[in-house]
Order: sequence, then C-alpha cells, then structure tokens
Amino acid sequence: MKFCSQCGSGSIVWQVPDGDNRPRHVCGECNEIHYQNPKLVVGSIPVWEDRILLCKRAIPPRYGYWTLPAGFMENGETTPEAAERETLEEANARVEILGLYTVMNIPHTNQVYMMFRSRLLDLDFGPGTESLECELFREDQIPWEELAFPTITETLRLFFEDRRREAYGTHLGDIVHGTRRAEFLPRRPR
Amino acid sequence: MKFCSQCGSGSIVWQVPDGDNRPRHVCGECNEIHYQNPKLVVGSIPVWEDRILLCKRAIPPRYGYWTLPAGFMENGETTPEAAERETLEEANARVEILGLYTVMNIPHTNQVYMMFRSRLLDLDFGPGTESLECELFREDQIPWEELAFPTITETLRLFFEDRRREAYGTHLGDIVHGTRRAEFLPRRPR
Repeated sequence: MKFCSQCGSGSIVWQVPDGDNRPRHVCGECNEIHYQNPKLVVGSIPVWEDRILLCKRAIPPRYGYWTLPAGFMENGETTPEAAERETLEEANARVEILGLYTVMNIPHTNQVYMMFRSRLLDLDFGPGTESLECELFREDQIPWEELAFPTITETLRLFFEDRRREAYGTHLGDIVHGTRRAEFLPRRPR
Repeated sequence: MKFCSQCGSGSIVWQVPDGDNRPRHVCGECNEIHYQNPKLVVGSIPVWEDRILLCKRAIPPRYGYWTLPAGFMENGETTPEAAERETLEEANARVEILGLYTVMNIPHTNQVYMMFRSRLLDLDFGPGTESLECELFREDQIPWEELAFPTITETLRLFFEDRRREAYGTHLGDIVHGTRRAEFLPRRPR
C-alpha cells in the first residue's frame, strides 16, 4: 500500500493505531486505518465412482502442476457456493457439495483453505481458462510428485485414508515450513 | 475505495477486468485491480464445568449485548490462534482450544464465522477494552434475548444440544435474512 484509498495521500505509515496492539497501514493525512486480513481459498474434491477430478494449472504459481479446483472466495457468496463456482470455472464441472472436509491454516501466506467433498454430476467437464487440462484419477494414478500445493497433497491423502474406512469428518490443521518442505500438522478435536 | 492505493489516482472505476467475470475496483490510470474478499471472524466457546463465558459488548455494533469472544482473524496466525487471542483480548481469559465447532457463512456481510470449543484454564478473567463485563452462564441463565448476533445464538443453541448427547462435530451453515429476522440454514454433510 503506497497511497491512501480514502484520501489519496502518499503519507502512509506503518504504526500501531491508538487502542490497537499491532502495526497497520495508517494514513498520515486522514488517519484512515487500512486493515489487511487473511483470505479464504475454497475448493472441492470432485468424485466420480473411484476417481477424483484434478486440473493442471495454466497460471502461476505452480504452472503445469496438478491441483483440485479451488480459488479465492468472493464477496456475497457462501463457502459451498464458492467451492461449486470454482469447480465450474476451473473444470467446467457441475458438482453437488457433500460436506466440509479440510480446513487448513497457512499463516505464512495469510490464507485459510477450505476444501469440500463433492459429487461430480456428469462427465461433461473440460479445462476452464485457468487450467491446461482436467482429468479423472484413481488413487493409484494420482501424480503425487506433480501436485501444486501441500494443501492439495494433504487433502487427497486424508481423503483416500478416510474413504477406506468410509468415515469422513472435518479435518483441521496447519501447513508449516518443515526443514526441507512444507508439513501438515493436524489439530485433532478433544 | 476512492483512490488507487498503488498510484494515488482518483480514477477508480467499477468494471469487469479482462478475463474476469465480475466487477472490481480498477484503477483507470495504472490498471491495478483492487480485489475485495470475505473476512474471517474467529472466536471461542469458553467452557468451565457447566458454564459458558460470555462478554457484554463495549463497542458497536450491538453495544451492551452479550457475545462469545470473537473478532477478525489477523494475518500471520492460524484460526485456533485467532480464537485463543480473541478470548484473551476480550475476556482476559486463557483457554485450551478443543475443536472447530461452527462454520457459518454470512454472505450479506461478506463474513465467515468460525467458532471453536475451548476449555477455560482458570477463573482469573475480566473484561478487555472491548467488553463491559464478562460472566459465566449456565444454560438456563443464558440471556437469549440479549445476544448480539445470530451466529452467537445459533452456536450456543447447537452447543447445548450436542452437550446433552456428548457428541460434538463441526457444524456448517448459512445465516440468511428471514422474513422477520436472520435465520440459520444448516448444511448437513452427505
């Protein structure tokens, strides 16, 4: 942030406002406080019989890697609506949302992922503008080494585990930087 | 948004950017797109034996009404950390976070609420700067008519129901405008 979106002043300072306890972008002219908050990334796990629909990314970051359809939640929608919309936009796929499956905190990117289980309604899907291709994968066909993000890898890993037991709950956890790569720390309910 | 936060121009237009499908604030000078996304409101249900800790609001909206400790999630934290921090800030109360309890979409205010069950660690609590008072309530003492928000009413209602069965899951649903007041539409997993 270089200029105040309320008054246009270039006197933006990074300081703790009165009565607050952390620094914010504050306008030196009109005193407007510009809050920045985490974003929700919402998507779905589209299932057709024993296969899962993945999309190959046509945009950075992680161009050419496989992902579940997901993206930033928009104003005016609910989280299941966001999951349905992202699945339609990225894979031209119609789904029925079944339940909230993973909630993953990524504090170093200021994001919270929410992935929903879903049922693919037909096989008339295909890449949207942000995908190179879309394809159904059985568990033994998942391109584990070519998945775009740790959130996707961990969501799929949990999903196949739960599918064997036929018991899906809602999984909560954090994606944190490990010594060599990102790791998933589950937070199990007590 | 009146001025561009990147270049300071006052030529902000509300239009659909190329390749997008919904209107955004776009700078007519530098073409910066200013996205706006829903915010996460995170809090906890602090439990001490058969009682719940509520806070009486010292700030608008709903000044003087009772609420569970909750507030906007901050960058750099996880959702359980946000719940713990809000409980400390609003009630000076230390809790152990137990599990994700309710996820409530409020599309008309561009918010998603996430409330966590928590265990109050001691009775050394008291109002923070945003609370007039903090008090423990048994179920039959809850001031149902003086609760601040539908998210709080519905979270408490679900909590007491589940406590009788001693089974807590994660509840997902939407807060929508009913004919006379806001209503909660649960979305049960399938």
